[in-house]
Amino acid sequence: MMDLEKILKLVRTGDLDVEEAKQQITRDLGSPGTADLGFAQLDLEREKRTGFPEVIFGEGKSTEQLIAIFRRLTESIDRVLATRIDPDKAAAVCAAVEGVSYHEAARALTWFKRPILKVHEGYIAVVCAGTSDLPVAEEAALTAECFGSHVERVYDVGVAGIHRLFRRLDLIRDANAIVVVAGMEGALASVVGGLVSKPIVAVPTSIGYGANLAGISALLSMLNACSPGIAVVNIDNGFGAGYYAGLINKNLSKRA
Amino acid sequence: MMDLEKILKLVRTGDLDVEEAKQQITRDLGSPGTADLGFAQLDLEREKRTGFPEVIFGEGKSTEQLIAIFRRLTESIDRVLATRIDPDKAAAVCAAVEGVSYHEAARALTWFKRPILKVHEGYIAVVCAGTSDLPVAEEAALTAECFGSHVERVYDVGVAGIHRLFRRLDLIRDANAIVVVAGMEGALASVVGGLVSKPIVAVPTSIGYGANLAGISALLSMLNACSPGIAVVNIDNGFGAGYYAGLINKNLSKRA
Amino acid sequence: MMDLEKILKLVRTGDLDVEEAKQQITRDLGSPGTADLGFAQLDLEREKRTGFPEVIFGEGKSTEQLIAIFRRLTESIDRVLATRIDPDKAAAVCAAVEGVSYHEAARALTWFKRPILKVHEGYIAVVCAGTSDLPVAEEAALTAECFGSHVERVYDVGVAGIHRLFRRLDLIRDANAIVVVAGMEGALASVVGGLVSKPIVAVPTSIGYGANLAGISALLSMLNACSPGIAVVNIDNGFGAGYYAGLINKNLSKRA
Amino acid sequence: MMDLEKILKLVRTGDLDVEEAKQQITRDLGSPGTADLGFAQLDLEREKRTGFPEVIFGEGKSTEQLIAIFRRLTESIDRVLATRIDPDKAAAVCAAVEGVSYHEAARALTWFKRPILKVHEGYIAVVCAGTSDLPVAEEAALTAECFGSHVERVYDVGVAGIHRLFRRLDLIRDANAIVVVAGMEGALASVVGGLVSKPIVAVPTSIGYGANLAGISALLSMLNACSPGIAVVNIDNGFGAGYYAGLINKNLSKRA
Amino acid sequence: MMDLEKILKLVRTGDLDVEEAKQQITRDLGSPGTADLGFAQLDLEREKRTGFPEVIFGEGKSTEQLIAIFRRLTESIDRVLATRIDPDKAAAVCAAVEGVSYHEAARALTWFKRPILKVHEGYIAVVCAGTSDLPVAEEAALTAECFGSHVERVYDVGVAGIHRLFRRLDLIRDANAIVVVAGMEGALASVVGGLVSKPIVAVPTSIGYGANLAGISALLSMLNACSPGIAVVNIDNGFGAGYYAGLINKNLSKRA
Amino acid sequence: MMDLEKILKLVRTGDLDVEEAKQQITRDLGSPGTADLGFAQLDLEREKRTGFPEVIFGEGKSTEQLIAIFRRLTESIDRVLATRIDPDKAAAVCAAVEGVSYHEAARALTWFKRPILKVHEGYIAVVCAGTSDLPVAEEAALTAECFGSHVERVYDVGVAGIHRLFRRLDLIRDANAIVVVAGMEGALASVVGGLVSKPIVAVPTSIGYGANLAGISALLSMLNACSPGIAVVNIDNGFGAGYYAGLINKNLSKRA
Amino acid sequence: MMDLEKILKLVRTGDLDVEEAKQQITRDLGSPGTADLGFAQLDLEREKRTGFPEVIFGEGKSTEQLIAIFRRLTESIDRVLATRIDPDKAAAVCAAVEGVSYHEAARALTWFKRPILKVHEGYIAVVCAGTSDLPVAEEAALTAECFGSHVERVYDVGVAGIHRLFRRLDLIRDANAIVVVAGMEGALASVVGGLVSKPIVAVPTSIGYGANLAGISALLSMLNACSPGIAVVNIDNGFGAGYYAGLINKNLSKRA
Amino acid sequence: MMDLEKILKLVRTGDLDVEEAKQQITRDLGSPGTADLGFAQLDLEREKRTGFPEVIFGEGKSTEQLIAIFRRLTESIDRVLATRIDPDKAAAVCAAVEGVSYHEAARALTWFKRPILKVHEGYIAVVCAGTSDLPVAEEAALTAECFGSHVERVYDVGVAGIHRLFRRLDLIRDANAIVVVAGMEGALASVVGGLVSKPIVAVPTSIGYGANLAGISALLSMLNACSPGIAVVNIDNGFGAGYYAGLINKNLSKRA
Repeated sequence: MMDLEKILKLVRTGDLDVEEAKQQITRDLGSPGTADLGFAQLDLEREKRTGFPEVIFGEGKSTEQLIAIFRRLTESIDRVLATRIDPDKAAAVCAAVEGVSYHEAARALTWFKRPILKVHEGYIAVVCAGTSDLPVAEEAALTAECFGSHVERVYDVGVAGIHRLFRRLDLIRDANAIVVVAGMEGALASVVGGLVSKPIVAVPTSIGYGANLAGISALLSMLNACSPGIAVVNIDNGFGAGYYAGLINKNLSKRA
Repeated sequence: MMDLEKILKLVRTGDLDVEEAKQQITRDLGSPGTADLGFAQLDLEREKRTGFPEVIFGEGKSTEQLIAIFRRLTESIDRVLATRIDPDKAAAVCAAVEGVSYHEAARALTWFKRPILKVHEGYIAVVCAGTSDLPVAEEAALTAECFGSHVERVYDVGVAGIHRLFRRLDLIRDANAIVVVAGMEGALASVVGGLVSKPIVAVPTSIGYGANLAGISALLSMLNACSPGIAVVNIDNGFGAGYYAGLINKNLSKRA
Repeated sequence: MMDLEKILKLVRTGDLDVEEAKQQITRDLGSPGTADLGFAQLDLEREKRTGFPEVIFGEGKSTEQLIAIFRRLTESIDRVLATRIDPDKAAAVCAAVEGVSYHEAARALTWFKRPILKVHEGYIAVVCAGTSDLPVAEEAALTAECFGSHVERVYDVGVAGIHRLFRRLDLIRDANAIVVVAGMEGALASVVGGLVSKPIVAVPTSIGYGANLAGISALLSMLNACSPGIAVVNIDNGFGAGYYAGLINKNLSKRA
Repeated sequence: MMDLEKILKLVRTGDLDVEEAKQQITRDLGSPGTADLGFAQLDLEREKRTGFPEVIFGEGKSTEQLIAIFRRLTESIDRVLATRIDPDKAAAVCAAVEGVSYHEAARALTWFKRPILKVHEGYIAVVCAGTSDLPVAEEAALTAECFGSHVERVYDVGVAGIHRLFRRLDLIRDANAIVVVAGMEGALASVVGGLVSKPIVAVPTSIGYGANLAGISALLSMLNACSPGIAVVNIDNGFGAGYYAGLINKNLSKRA
Repeated sequence: MMDLEKILKLVRTGDLDVEEAKQQITRDLGSPGTADLGFAQLDLEREKRTGFPEVIFGEGKSTEQLIAIFRRLTESIDRVLATRIDPDKAAAVCAAVEGVSYHEAARALTWFKRPILKVHEGYIAVVCAGTSDLPVAEEAALTAECFGSHVERVYDVGVAGIHRLFRRLDLIRDANAIVVVAGMEGALASVVGGLVSKPIVAVPTSIGYGANLAGISALLSMLNACSPGIAVVNIDNGFGAGYYAGLINKNLSKRA
Repeated sequence: MMDLEKILKLVRTGDLDVEEAKQQITRDLGSPGTADLGFAQLDLEREKRTGFPEVIFGEGKSTEQLIAIFRRLTESIDRVLATRIDPDKAAAVCAAVEGVSYHEAARALTWFKRPILKVHEGYIAVVCAGTSDLPVAEEAALTAECFGSHVERVYDVGVAGIHRLFRRLDLIRDANAIVVVAGMEGALASVVGGLVSKPIVAVPTSIGYGANLAGISALLSMLNACSPGIAVVNIDNGFGAGYYAGLINKNLSKRA
Repeated sequence: MMDLEKILKLVRTGDLDVEEAKQQITRDLGSPGTADLGFAQLDLEREKRTGFPEVIFGEGKSTEQLIAIFRRLTESIDRVLATRIDPDKAAAVCAAVEGVSYHEAARALTWFKRPILKVHEGYIAVVCAGTSDLPVAEEAALTAECFGSHVERVYDVGVAGIHRLFRRLDLIRDANAIVVVAGMEGALASVVGGLVSKPIVAVPTSIGYGANLAGISALLSMLNACSPGIAVVNIDNGFGAGYYAGLINKNLSKRA
Repeated sequence: MMDLEKILKLVRTGDLDVEEAKQQITRDLGSPGTADLGFAQLDLEREKRTGFPEVIFGEGKSTEQLIAIFRRLTESIDRVLATRIDPDKAAAVCAAVEGVSYHEAARALTWFKRPILKVHEGYIAVVCAGTSDLPVAEEAALTAECFGSHVERVYDVGVAGIHRLFRRLDLIRDANAIVVVAGMEGALASVVGGLVSKPIVAVPTSIGYGANLAGISALLSMLNACSPGIAVVNIDNGFGAGYYAGLINKNLSKRA
């Protein structure tokens, strides 16, 4: 946060008067780096606080709001990620703000002040049960890449043909963190969990029908996984999983 | 049902008068072989109709009711199975009715007019994920045995250590029908389903905690299994699964 | 799987060197017959493993993906079934891949290298409660036919007019396996279950309204059926039921 | 309610002053025949208003409260019914208040100023699927009897052996109203509904296990019954069903 | 059903041979008056069995199917009711089948061989909480009218302004049966139930939002109503309620 | 309500005859100030009874119905508020009824006989977690303003960046009542609740995805808030919250 | 919070050195008035922050923990309230800590440094539907009294006999805030809401059975109440309702 | 797994015959290090595969089974952890197996061949909302410690008094992984998530009442947390969270 010690020293030396100091302390405690767009208070110092800049959740935001947010964020921070963007809105934002790219498979927009550098060592494995789970897996992969992790994609390895998983097991085992994306009964998380020694972030997807209950079935499966070493994010929350795996990977890399 | 043709012929020949014939037809359509105990109408011809005699669901029945039912059934049919019997009631029934045995692991009572003959060829595999699922698995195994199937038990082979399953895969593959019993996330059904070509009867158990929701988690998993060849019975319904697998096995045996 | 004994003998005789042998064993354990389409890993040896080739679940797959999958599968396997295909996608696939047929009532695509031969003896009865349940019943019937079973359709025999069922009871009783498709309260499964001695695969449908909860009502009914001999597949899962009944029928036929 | 006309006439004639009249009108609109026990406001004129006196729901009431309520009600009304009373409380109430009887099967207490007269013509059929549903069926039967209806009990006729139902169909068909009590999948209501032309009050019971969800399964089934002519009361609410059927029967009797 | 006695006498006298008699008995037990349209088995004798002819549930049926059903039913029965028909399908059916009328508020089609005669004495009150519940209330009212009951509509009398209800209480009290239609929290059923002595059929509607859960909130309220004398039909099931109330009214009228 | 004393005095003096008096008392008890539009009974004296005039819930009402309601209400009451109005219907109503305004952000229509006067002292704080919750927050704010409260909007202060909340805490603390609008996990209500001494009306919104369950997640959170001083209204019910806060504020203002 | 200005002035004048000032600011921001018991961090300044001292939720706390908490709190604050205390624990706490009283009906313990003074003007009405809801109503009433409000109890006035409510309507109308406690279908909240102009805090209770779902039925009803002016707290949360009503009353009293 | 290369070389050189080699390969693929206790297949090489030895889930296991498992595991592995052990079973196991300790707060048994060495650098913060959440928090802490992590406990810092959290924020921020344990509405996870840059494992607890739904409320909150960097384990699954955090910490330590 603010440099409290410095302020107090200035007060002591008389270089800052009491009222001003009081205001600075109060404000800084209150609003470090917030950009007020009226409809939104952008959190410009999220990166400082949590390690990653604020990410835009696109669902329910108008094209105008998205453009305004992109314009403001690109002034102040180095990279911007917006998820859940449909192609029409994406086109409008790309047209309005220079340097924004659309990733159709992941339904996401990104903007970088400078080329992505894969700064972190090691990699994240994004493992995905079926073809229909791809958009969520891609959202996870893109998020992790966007925050500086290398990603290995291991797709369509659901347990109905478990040999497909075994063939690529070494790649999965050597990752620093593993994202497992699965719909239907979500059994893939349990199976991978019994075979590796790395933290797994499980993402249930809403793929399936009937008693799938829009992803509740996979969610419950993953929460009840008989293998330990599995933690779960919200249904279809590829972003959350990519972020979490990226966080683990970044901390490992820093340490190394 | 009744021999309608015979009745009609007797009417024709005058050996049976119209009123009597009418009564016979009506009654036989209505109540073939029912024993009325007041509180229960025992279905003495269930075996003729569905291939197995009526089975007693013990939960919520008093010791007196159980004894009365056993007494009546042992007069008319060849074998009796009663499930969900706690040890105290079991002791009372065993004391009151000769020849009744209690199977503690399966919480079931059986009675046979003559020794069980394993009449059906082939066998049923009862596959069970964890130690806590044993009572349900035993209920399934005993039910199948009671109706004349040989059973192979493959216990404690949950997916957290999937090699335990692979070791015994051949035994499972060669069964005529497979019962898979699993609680928690129930992933075992999907995994077995991807590896065999025999019908699987999946039994979710209420084993687990938290978001397991007393077995709903495993139930939903099994219904949403990404492998085909899996059908599901009610939570903890070992009896239903053993019965179903026994039915498949019996029909196969008849055919052979 | 691979012929391990043969490989080892070749090693022994020196006809296969150690490194090569190691690779063969490892790969074969890992990936027997998988076709990699990038977005999908087609399981070309599913039939060898589970008795039926991989079936395409059409929901959520693009027309392009479907065409690519059909093109690849028709090269390697003898028959292809794709379910949950809407008419527009169906037309595009039929135009692009020769020999593909669309079954509108069942919303499914099929392709056969050679004419279907009804190889299995006996038949499957597909019993359906109401007119609105027809698409699910047809999916079940087509699936079973596609895998070589003869099917008898017994439609619109819901319990509101139970005499309609009794009229056709003999046909149902003589089947090797029975698929019961019902929405609303799903009582048909229980009623049939009390009258026959063949395994019943019950399919709840999402037909109904209000507290039907998109099929949950029928699903719970079927899971709680007071008649034994009933196992349940997912809501609207005609494919799963047809597959399961086909599996039972095929095994019986083999045996006979 | 009060006799407003009479009051106004008294005002007119000067036999009642304005203030008094005002109080009478206000109070009578507000509290006709309420007995205040502190912890309860007994509704002494419920019978006048709705055709039946207030019934005591015993669950959660202490023995002391039950005795106090019985003492007060027996002073003012002709018959008292209290449901959901366990044997211990029942014994205490019977000991404390003269003339109270306990009906163990129905878990209910009754008291009558004079012998029950079966005043209503015709009868109510209480139809029950299984032995375990008996307490709920008895609560329904006793309630109807208590309010002056003759009851015919048709027990243990669940659809797993549907011939048991057909045998007694005529008795059911000739009732003025039919109560159907069933747990598990509750299919009995639909089947009866397709065979009769009298209003059916369906009572789901909490009998069953697993995905029965304490009666929710039977409740949903009955609400979704494909036969019309069925209305549903709360799970295990034998009282409500007996009351409702009694109401129909009483109105018919009045008319006749 | 068939005249069994007559058949037997003919057998006795030799006027009917045994084989023929057997067929007649079997067929008549099995299929009295069913019209087979391929996709549907129309139940032509439902009225004889349950007091009302079969009603068409329009949802999910195609225009072609509806026309075929109307054509067939109008040949054999005296009145036809089809519910859940949208305006487009309605127009097509009206154009194709003479004498069919569309009731827009109730979203229903009717056809009568001869003018409706209000044959039953007394009337049914259809009481409705809010303007948005009107379509369901109209479906109930039309159904009752269609089957020969007079209906009094008491609309928009929800408990937020309970005086609106009191004003029309006498009309409600004098009905033979009362349909209460309410969405949101469905409290109207309880309030009416505390004030009348006639059977109430409560219809929860899906009107509301948020935690209304598409009618589940009102459904649970009505099932848990603290007033007795209330039975419940499925959410939005105006037809079921009108039918049920009509059944009570018809039986009363017959008796009178 | 009516002036009962006055009526009685007139009766006494003979200036009102008994029959007339009876009618007046009965009618007034029954229908004070209701306008009957056929499809709706407008409650013209709601304000007298509950402090606010009746508010129109627009969802499910046709444009014609809305216009009729506005026309009738603007004749009799001073201000009209209609919520859940989409832009098309709004345009039609504004065109048809003079003086009606549309508030797009709040999706509401208002009409005032005379300019709004902010009559109540103090103010209400409407606190909102995210940009996507704005429509609900605006509905709350407009409702409160419409009924005479000053509103301070504190938007986009969700707990992911809790400093944004602290910055504006004083404004929140000094309100007479606080509306907290939040979707996703709804944690904002608990956090604000731990920091202020004013009643909080929490509004869960349906913003979120996956296991958000259309607002159920936030609803449960708010009901289980570990801070006291929080009461909850229905999901997305901005109107209810604004009304409730307005009620508290008005009562405070009256008192002051 | 801390007096920041004073600290800064002391820094300026040199009476406080920078390091000390930094610590004071940091700590005070962090932990004003917390008592650390190891297993609990008692919040001694909750009253300053939210207007009421911290209340102890007794469920799940051991007798030892309760005694330790009471001992510590009675040293620092003026009144202590602990809810959800069973009689055994209560006796132990009363024996160990002087001046603690147990309120059996409300299952709560209280301790006051000095006699309760009813400081606030006006009163709160606690309205309760049935006898079984009393413990929750008493918890609400005691909580409000404990924090200085006068309470009027209006018990057993459920809508099954709505005249009981009307009789006491004036008492309810004149309260500053109204707590409505109801189980089963919870309709009482809606009915009261349509009749008064004061804020209502609705408390659903878990009283009922079957589809009551342990209070969910009443909870949903109250959230969906068609009358505005109702906000809801958690099931059985008498404390929360009494607290909320007390907060409204206190603020009104302060203002007056 | 096995050393395939070595086996193949021995085959080549003739030091191992083909049959034996085949058996070794097959068995090792199938069952590396499983101890068969009949009722359980202990996974002795779990540590090799996943980094931690198998942990015993005590619920539903008999004392005899626990003792047998402890006896067998202590022969083969270095440390044993058993969770969900009640005090009675614990005493029996401690008496029967030397060196086993019971941790009452965590309800867990541990056994170590040699003293625990805190091998991993850095630490895990276990943060807990309320006193009632302690057993779950302790299970998490003990699990992490048992697998070699240092743990800092930060207890009773729920958001109702958010300053308690801020006071200890630095300790939380510097952890390598953070376990957040909270019941009720579980808001603590979101708040911590907005303030730190380390991965958070959130554990919902079943603490609360009413609409808490045995932990579902907190579970949904945590899954829907508006802050990223949060992944969730099952309700009350302290073990899973401690394991997961331990896994992250161990990998970091290895790297460092």
